[in-house]
Amino acid sequence: MTDADLSRRIAFLLETEKLNYILRQTPVADGSRRENDAEHSFHFALMAMTLAPYAAEEINLDRVVQMALLHDLIEVYAGDTYVYDKEANRDKAARESAAADRLYGLLPAEQGSRFYALWREFDDGRTADARFAACIDRFQPLLMNYQSGGLSWREHQVSAREVRARIAEIKSPAPALHAYAQTIIEKAVENGWLLP
Amino acid sequence: MTDADLSRRIAFLLETEKLNYILRQTPVADGSRRENDAEHSFHFALMAMTLAPYAAEEINLDRVVQMALLHDLIEVYAGDTYVYDKEANRDKAARESAAADRLYGLLPAEQGSRFYALWREFDDGRTADARFAACIDRFQPLLMNYQSGGLSWREHQVSAREVRARIAEIKSPAPALHAYAQTIIEKAVENGWLLP
Repeated sequence: MTDADLSRRIAFLLETEKLNYILRQTPVADGSRRENDAEHSFHFALMAMTLAPYAAEEINLDRVVQMALLHDLIEVYAGDTYVYDKEANRDKAARESAAADRLYGLLPAEQGSRFYALWREFDDGRTADARFAACIDRFQPLLMNYQSGGLSWREHQVSAREVRARIAEIKSPAPALHAYAQTIIEKAVENGWLLP
Repeated sequence: MTDADLSRRIAFLLETEKLNYILRQTPVADGSRRENDAEHSFHFALMAMTLAPYAAEEINLDRVVQMALLHDLIEVYAGDTYVYDKEANRDKAARESAAADRLYGLLPAEQGSRFYALWREFDDGRTADARFAACIDRFQPLLMNYQSGGLSWREHQVSAREVRARIAEIKSPAPALHAYAQTIIEKAVENGWLLP
């Protein structure tokens, strides 16, 4: 390893620090402000560690945790795309692929390829690890939104049907989390935080 | 696993979400505000993944990453103790032990014990994994502080000698990171951000 390799890794870390400034639609639990991508990624990783026993398929938790840490890094260049924003979702894949090439290209080649592959696997969602990671990525904002009194649901007039569609893919990889999420949605409708 | 186990895990996750509200002395890199514990923990974990090639001892990266995610959770109850605050550091160990019992006690017993043991191992610093984790925990705020123009060093009138003493323990587990940190300290002194 050369000094240049270390410089490249530091450059990558300074770029990814910018997740601190990328705000999501989801609020923090007390509703005082919006959550940023670094906070979301941290809670996603910790939630994966804590909720791993609910994975229906056999998973490699260490890979799921690494996916959690990597999954949003490309938003440094591609920005956060709100899941219920149909327009912005049209060119999301192309924007994110270009961002991934640029970001992971900062690293020494072997490491950059390995990180890129993990991010791509998460994004493709075709392995057990990626499917369970996706469950947590859905579950975390649901819980935060609910705790905040449905702030971003109310702001964007989201319906229970949209949220149910969004969490449908949790059912098979994590049935207990899906059942818990269904209960949350029912309570949110009762409270008038989601359109019925 | 029972529904009660899931409820306990969710209660733990909602408590640890409060890391979002615990501010550290270290600024974010652009100096616009102070960093919170969730952001620090995220960057610590990602930095461990990225800088793992610089560990001088054989490490298990997956354990280091889990330590990063767990290492500050007890601050939900014990608060953040500034490393250069001598007074607050006197009862730090006792406050943090009590906080760990309370926090990890929220989880189902087996999982709570496992997480507690990882946190304790990090805190004791006697294994290769804990030593490398400590390197990153030192290196991350150094880099952020430097990027921000030495904000918290200037605010607290920290000297180069204090920072050098703080990073001395990096030297053996991660010599290349120690050398990089020394360069940063020299530049910070030249710029008048650290007392000589």
